[in-house]
Amino acid sequence: MPKYDLSPPAGTRDFFAEDMKLRESVLHTVRDVFERFGFLPLETPAFERVDIMMGKYGEEEKLIFKILKRGEKQSGGEADLALRYDFTIPLARVVARYPEKIGRLFRRYQIGPVWRADRPAKGRFREFYQCDVDIVGSRSVNAEAEVILVLTEALSAAGVHNFTVRLNSRKVLGALLEMHDIPTELHTSVTTAIDKLDKIGVVGVSAELLQRGVPASKRDGLLQDLEAHVADPGHIRKRLVSLPSGEAALRDIDQVTGIVQPLMKHGKLVFDPFVARGLSYYTGIIFEIAAEGIGSSIASGGRYDDLVGMFSSNEVPACGGSLGIERILMLLQNTEAARERQNVPQVLVTIWDENLRSDAFRFATHLRDHGVSTEIYVGEGKLSQQIGYASKKGIPYCAVIGPDEHAKSQVAIKDLRSQIQVLATWDEALQTLKRTAKTPLP
Amino acid sequence: MPKYDLSPPAGTRDFFAEDMKLRESVLHTVRDVFERFGFLPLETPAFERVDIMMGKYGEEEKLIFKILKRGEKQSGGEADLALRYDFTIPLARVVARYPEKIGRLFRRYQIGPVWRADRPAKGRFREFYQCDVDIVGSRSVNAEAEVILVLTEALSAAGVHNFTVRLNSRKVLGALLEMHDIPTELHTSVTTAIDKLDKIGVVGVSAELLQRGVPASKRDGLLQDLEAHVADPGHIRKRLVSLPSGEAALRDIDQVTGIVQPLMKHGKLVFDPFVARGLSYYTGIIFEIAAEGIGSSIASGGRYDDLVGMFSSNEVPACGGSLGIERILMLLQNTEAARERQNVPQVLVTIWDENLRSDAFRFATHLRDHGVSTEIYVGEGKLSQQIGYASKKGIPYCAVIGPDEHAKSQVAIKDLRSQIQVLATWDEALQTLKRTAKTPLP
Repeated sequence: MPKYDLSPPAGTRDFFAEDMKLRESVLHTVRDVFERFGFLPLETPAFERVDIMMGKYGEEEKLIFKILKRGEKQSGGEADLALRYDFTIPLARVVARYPEKIGRLFRRYQIGPVWRADRPAKGRFREFYQCDVDIVGSRSVNAEAEVILVLTEALSAAGVHNFTVRLNSRKVLGALLEMHDIPTELHTSVTTAIDKLDKIGVVGVSAELLQRGVPASKRDGLLQDLEAHVADPGHIRKRLVSLPSGEAALRDIDQVTGIVQPLMKHGKLVFDPFVARGLSYYTGIIFEIAAEGIGSSIASGGRYDDLVGMFSSNEVPACGGSLGIERILMLLQNTEAARERQNVPQVLVTIWDENLRSDAFRFATHLRDHGVSTEIYVGEGKLSQQIGYASKKGIPYCAVIGPDEHAKSQVAIKDLRSQIQVLATWDEALQTLKRTAKTPLP
Repeated sequence: MPKYDLSPPAGTRDFFAEDMKLRESVLHTVRDVFERFGFLPLETPAFERVDIMMGKYGEEEKLIFKILKRGEKQSGGEADLALRYDFTIPLARVVARYPEKIGRLFRRYQIGPVWRADRPAKGRFREFYQCDVDIVGSRSVNAEAEVILVLTEALSAAGVHNFTVRLNSRKVLGALLEMHDIPTELHTSVTTAIDKLDKIGVVGVSAELLQRGVPASKRDGLLQDLEAHVADPGHIRKRLVSLPSGEAALRDIDQVTGIVQPLMKHGKLVFDPFVARGLSYYTGIIFEIAAEGIGSSIASGGRYDDLVGMFSSNEVPACGGSLGIERILMLLQNTEAARERQNVPQVLVTIWDENLRSDAFRFATHLRDHGVSTEIYVGEGKLSQQIGYASKKGIPYCAVIGPDEHAKSQVAIKDLRSQIQVLATWDEALQTLKRTAKTPLP
């Protein structure tokens, strides 16, 4: 036999039932909240035509997984397809492809894996889930408010309660840079540097600005504002309110805050004028949600009025957001709620011998028909091995129908935790197993 | 703007909410049944290392989607990964990789997309879902019985009631070919020819056998049996029962039938000695489930004792089965049940103006908190446009809070089907909307 590397490919994972229980439950909760907010599902293929994907991700383009042509064309080594990198490009394609289904206003969610050939690290995978909501067709800040509300509600419902929504607008940053007379063509680059204020401090940002070609004279004014902001979080607001463009930007922020803040069940919302978001495609409100105990953000989004229309002939305003579900799962991994979720069948029905086998299958069917998750032992072990199997797997109850039970139309139910065994009719046993789903036999 | 082909890649699909509702509901039902039977989820990556996949699929290998190496290695045109083609190879890898988690007996299900670069056709896609159950580690026919039971129960629960399980064993075919003295090395090839009896008849099979190198003398005996079987379905059983190998094969069939038949809620089960299954890896019981109104089978499976162990150093007996979920969905598409499933929010909360906006968001939150799926209108249209939007989308109710309703702490609920409008307190409105989830306002 050839030697195989049997581990999953770098950056991907095999999920067993015990890994899946929290994962599935959180994804289920998120989906429920999205639908409760009137977002509808959209599912696009795992891969797109390669030209749809190229030229959209800047430097990150090299992280796209490309798929070789098949058949005779394979030998050329060319790719015609690429695994999706996010859900935004597929959304843009769908918006342009099906105008009659999209209408003037369209809201959808998409939950599923995306693939990026990033360097694998703790919390960074090559295959990971994204949970996106987007609203296409509205320029109103009501759309941003709705997006932030649905994401914070999803966090609340999933059990993440200590978080901070850091709200900003690209227009705030624009007004600030305008005030300091920084040339428009440097705005994106400068924004990227300012985004790092949290991590590298004023001194670090200063060095980056120089490196990115901001003249020293202009840089110093900007740095003064940064320093003043660190000392007084209200500083930037006071500076901006005197500028028309600054005042308009602040009005957006205040409207979103006015809608969202009173309705958030957990967490808090703050205006943070230096949240910049790495991606260059945002055009208005931007936000990041940070959680205690985790370095990077657990959700983010904003308005990107030029992005979703990239394949359309007309302009398409849009805003949306995304939950960093892999990080959220890391946060929840060690909580009480995670441990409580059951991931094994409720009962193992043992098979006494070939003569009593049909009793066992019939009793298993009886339980299953009434919603009790039931495994029937299909291996070749003796009764003691069957019970040992259940015990090892963590199944709480065993059912045994031996000749005595068969003669009396009964079944023995053994609680593997307390070792208590009771004899019961099939219906009594069903009632007991339904009732004691989570508690040991009395 | 470059010209893009905006349709999904050949053989793949975009699913909107109206396409997803039946799909998700059926997948959910199937998953529920699998778990009720004590199968636990396993999720493996979308792609595997390319060497894990090569040399396992015979002629079909050319249908595998391969992924180009990244970065500098990309220019070589080589592939290091491949999209999964089924769930069996990933299962085999997992069984070999994690012996301590697998133990002596392991049962799992896996539901998700697989990818095959097949020629797209009606009902044949390049991206499609598979739903597999497998039991690893048992040689007992109880395992096959359990697999057939869980699949038939899943069909029943999904609403497919007219089906036939056609049961056979590779050993039946083996005994038959042995009886006719057909050389062992021809068995697989002959089996493939016999598998087509349904489609090409005795004459067609006869031609195929000759083509596949079966000597004319031996072929005639076999054809006599085929003809006799067409006239009398009990013929083959009578012939086999006299052979020791035939008798053993029939005993397997009879045991599985004895367990499964009395517990099937719908459909029927028959012994069909000429079901052969295309795949060469089966070693014992094989089955196909056929449904009225569809040409190809909607489920299939069997025992494949040598397959799952392909990466392991020891032998691993296993059996399993798969639901052809795309075909099942085609069967169900036009049923009453499919039409009844709701795929839009229950209510659209309109926004009167900026002053009353927070009322609208608060009322929407009130409904959502009590489980009513609620969309809030976030576009920029007037009230009539908002109601028109709801109506076009098929949302049954609109909620309006204008100045009058605001003054009285009320809300107007409009039934868009009957055009009846009622005024109510927020709590009354909530109760009404919960109650009338499916019926119009009185």
